[in-house]
Amino acid sequence: MSNQILVKMVLDAWYSKLKSGDVLFDQLSDEQLQNEVAPNRNRGIYLLGHLTGVHDMMLPLLNLGEQLYPQLKEGFIDQPDKSATEIVTASELRQYWKNVNAALENHFNKFGPDDWFQKHNSVSVEDFNQEPHRNKLNVLISRTNHLSYHLGQMVFLKK
Amino acid sequence: MSNQILVKMVLDAWYSKLKSGDVLFDQLSDEQLQNEVAPNRNRGIYLLGHLTGVHDMMLPLLNLGEQLYPQLKEGFIDQPDKSATEIVTASELRQYWKNVNAALENHFNKFGPDDWFQKHNSVSVEDFNQEPHRNKLNVLISRTNHLSYHLGQMVFLKK
Repeated sequence: MSNQILVKMVLDAWYSKLKSGDVLFDQLSDEQLQNEVAPNRNRGIYLLGHLTGVHDMMLPLLNLGEQLYPQLKEGFIDQPDKSATEIVTASELRQYWKNVNAALENHFNKFGPDDWFQKHNSVSVEDFNQEPHRNKLNVLISRTNHLSYHLGQMVFLKK
Repeated sequence: MSNQILVKMVLDAWYSKLKSGDVLFDQLSDEQLQNEVAPNRNRGIYLLGHLTGVHDMMLPLLNLGEQLYPQLKEGFIDQPDKSATEIVTASELRQYWKNVNAALENHFNKFGPDDWFQKHNSVSVEDFNQEPHRNKLNVLISRTNHLSYHLGQMVFLKK
């Protein structure tokens, strides 16, 4: 069994969930994104910004460059919903979401199978030598589950 | 990079999400499980039965034997919530959840790394020869995301 097939399995899951997100977000109006996904829970727009910000942070984490939208971190990752001043519109966030995922895909397309098994930037060389599973592909597995988790919530925004 | 490390990455994600489920379900009373996760959405008990039934069906899918609780399929997979007669209590479902996941773990502990790359039972030999990523490990990746999706919903049952 080659690494290539393993990488394909993980990438297929990632792109499948991104696609589910794209389809869902296209079904939701800007007004619907302003609603809470459930009473007293996060609003759709916060979760869209959160997912976009977390994916954006994968760029430096995977050693692929700087974040495209570092301004998302404070309002959509560090702080809970409804605590920060709104800095971006739904329309902007929709575009950021597409841009960030496209930037990641552009990098991933240039990865060779072995690149996925390199260490990511939140683990030290020493720790990575002991724990070689803490690699870039593992980040993708984790982020795919994170995306699934929040998509399960955002689906409630649909009528 | 050995297959063993990749299998570990996927298994770690699976067990991590199962653990999140265990912790969450222990925090929820039987009464809370009777609530809808959001207005007019599935009840907690339905989702617990659904997750348990889907995991139970992994036993035959991965060629590990018969389902332990085939009675879950109709009421928690084939039919939507609130359409079937209640056949199990929350207390029983909690136990089934543990038993099914323990049965899977027991089998997984006996797998060698190559076993994960065998075909599962929903793909033909011919298709599998063309699409070797449709293997048992891929089922686990998919089911981990499925679990994440519904845990994102069930967390709303907490006060």
